[in-house]
Amino acid sequence: MKAAIICVGTELLMGSTLNTHSQYLSLKLSELGIPMYYHGVVGDNPDRLKEMLAHYYQTVDLIILSGGLGPTEDDLTKEIVCEYMNVPLVFSEELHQNLIERFKNYGHRQMTTNNLKQCNIPDPGIVLANPNGTAPGCIVSSQGKTAILLPGPPSELIPMFENEAFPYLAKLSKGVLVSKYIRTFGIGESACETEILDLIGLTNPTLATYAKPGEVMLRITASGESEAEAEALLEPVLKEVENRLGGYIYAYDNEELETVLVKALKAADKTIALAESCTGGLISSRIVNVPGSSEVFGTGVVSYANEAKMNLLKVSEEILETQGAVSEACAQAMTEGLFEISGADLCVAVTGIAGPEGGTVDKPVGLVYLDLFMDGIHETHRLQFSGNRERIRNTTTLHALHKSLVKIWGE
Amino acid sequence: MKAAIICVGTELLMGSTLNTHSQYLSLKLSELGIPMYYHGVVGDNPDRLKEMLAHYYQTVDLIILSGGLGPTEDDLTKEIVCEYMNVPLVFSEELHQNLIERFKNYGHRQMTTNNLKQCNIPDPGIVLANPNGTAPGCIVSSQGKTAILLPGPPSELIPMFENEAFPYLAKLSKGVLVSKYIRTFGIGESACETEILDLIGLTNPTLATYAKPGEVMLRITASGESEAEAEALLEPVLKEVENRLGGYIYAYDNEELETVLVKALKAADKTIALAESCTGGLISSRIVNVPGSSEVFGTGVVSYANEAKMNLLKVSEEILETQGAVSEACAQAMTEGLFEISGADLCVAVTGIAGPEGGTVDKPVGLVYLDLFMDGIHETHRLQFSGNRERIRNTTTLHALHKSLVKIWGE
Repeated sequence: MKAAIICVGTELLMGSTLNTHSQYLSLKLSELGIPMYYHGVVGDNPDRLKEMLAHYYQTVDLIILSGGLGPTEDDLTKEIVCEYMNVPLVFSEELHQNLIERFKNYGHRQMTTNNLKQCNIPDPGIVLANPNGTAPGCIVSSQGKTAILLPGPPSELIPMFENEAFPYLAKLSKGVLVSKYIRTFGIGESACETEILDLIGLTNPTLATYAKPGEVMLRITASGESEAEAEALLEPVLKEVENRLGGYIYAYDNEELETVLVKALKAADKTIALAESCTGGLISSRIVNVPGSSEVFGTGVVSYANEAKMNLLKVSEEILETQGAVSEACAQAMTEGLFEISGADLCVAVTGIAGPEGGTVDKPVGLVYLDLFMDGIHETHRLQFSGNRERIRNTTTLHALHKSLVKIWGE
Repeated sequence: MKAAIICVGTELLMGSTLNTHSQYLSLKLSELGIPMYYHGVVGDNPDRLKEMLAHYYQTVDLIILSGGLGPTEDDLTKEIVCEYMNVPLVFSEELHQNLIERFKNYGHRQMTTNNLKQCNIPDPGIVLANPNGTAPGCIVSSQGKTAILLPGPPSELIPMFENEAFPYLAKLSKGVLVSKYIRTFGIGESACETEILDLIGLTNPTLATYAKPGEVMLRITASGESEAEAEALLEPVLKEVENRLGGYIYAYDNEELETVLVKALKAADKTIALAESCTGGLISSRIVNVPGSSEVFGTGVVSYANEAKMNLLKVSEEILETQGAVSEACAQAMTEGLFEISGADLCVAVTGIAGPEGGTVDKPVGLVYLDLFMDGIHETHRLQFSGNRERIRNTTTLHALHKSLVKIWGE
């Protein structure tokens, strides 16, 4: 099987929206061992979408399309693909009932007549349920060519792909694929690649690296006749990667730092509390996004203003005046105050200068103090980050999550 | 002039690297009033690059290519494009001397024989200097078609485009494009489009809608000989959209809700404080991401656990026992407690069930109470959202930001 991706949307073509789907889908297909030949983007234009289908289907058998499944006049992906493949669309009363039900639950939103076209499905075809939106996806095949149509919003596309399209494709591809993700923190992408350059040329298993902001993820994928065979092929490469990158690895699954942290806290029977200044709730928010985090996290304070540091965390006016809010003393006072009100086992505080204003020669933009207070002992880090406000806040968040994880692991 | 972009690179096709060039170049070309027809990505494969050139040049006159200008065997973009356009490559002794000079300065890096192919330039053609790397770019034209070749690394592509390609294109392009963004909240994409369906068919200006999570953005783009002419074309359509969608519009620039809220708070000389349960700091965090938000936001409380609601916000045990944490009474007690500790003009609290666990028949997953407390008066909303945990938390955040904005506007 050979594959291509077409993202449909004028907003992508105009640059209003960054195309992240092509990367996401490519990584998923590479996991399945399906080679990728083209990425394409077209606007909401029937002729150019048809041309692109014709061009790609000369070479590939599978095209994954995103976008253009909405209820509006612009949304024509399903109609064009089915026309191109010569597969009729029929009205599904079942989908219609689902849609009515969904709008009832929305309460505040009215169903409009143009929503009805979302009930048209290819016949023959496979409908892909969309629990996160009104546009169902579908799989349509004809004359050896297959198209998988997914909705444009990432919050709809990703769950639909994971839950419906990925299992479908996994069944089609021969053999068994076993993938192992390795997540590292604290090593840059090129440094990481230098370490494992020779392994990147392997064909089975294959090894891919990719960088997320602040971290590098590696994926090793082996294919075999059986899971055991694939795992046996994977194992020595995994060991080799561990030998070379050991200190930077924090997870072996495709899990975010906060998920690993919440698991580690549960395993250690510890609780965490947060006092955030420059991150403004971002660290707490990432922890709360982990289902079940209420077992380990109950209290966060966003003490963005000095008044909040004094009133809520009992940071002394003296510290704020003599050392300033961005200082080791303030970070430590914040965790101590946080411990008083939360009683959490691990109290974490960050205070820094996210910019663009507020930097000085001594305390430039990007300076962050991070304090971890546990068993009456402070562990304070003075960190210097670069980039814009958002990047500094995100990097601070990742470091706070990672240092907390290492702390809990050390217990 | 009509344009397309082709990014060449197996790392893009495999998903190891996110393609940000297409968005960057699209935004730049749209600034020049050059319409974009296709984005494409191919690996380092001569045949597929040739095919894609042939496909796009059927429609467009200008293709901007990135990547494949390096010294390795894989790097074939220049060779393929010049072959396709039937323009010979000649060895430039000037570039050769520059390259020798550059490697002298590198010191630690040796020039290899395959670096020599970087000295080949199209003749006729324009060489684009690369002060940030060894690969020069170039512009090559033939039979009314133009290709601009840029290196792959962003640190080389962006300065080369800004300094060399953009001025070249600015001279060529006639007319000016003016875009206006309109951001709405509280109307679904299809309901929004139903309102303005007849306007979507316009050709100058063009009108596009697109959905971000929880909101719909509209873009009106007009082209004219001058900015004034484009604006004159744009104005009546903008007015018409305002007439139809007035109540849902919250911004006329491409600004996030939190940015508009922070501006509104500053203009009204009001402060805001947040008490968050299910959102876990997300609302605070979005406000803090706005530079200068410290003028209007100082205190946030993440009272995820009942203990935090009681200790920090003085929510009574009685309310938690009789009404529960997800209740109107609790939301109101949270804002009152928040007012006590923050003194903020507008105190906002959210408490809800983000799932996947914790829902009941009476209080299903997605139920959220939002209270806004200002001048001693409560405004409480019972909201019901759907989707997964992340979506419920994000939607809650957007509603809290929007309701706060409306509240401040109402002052």
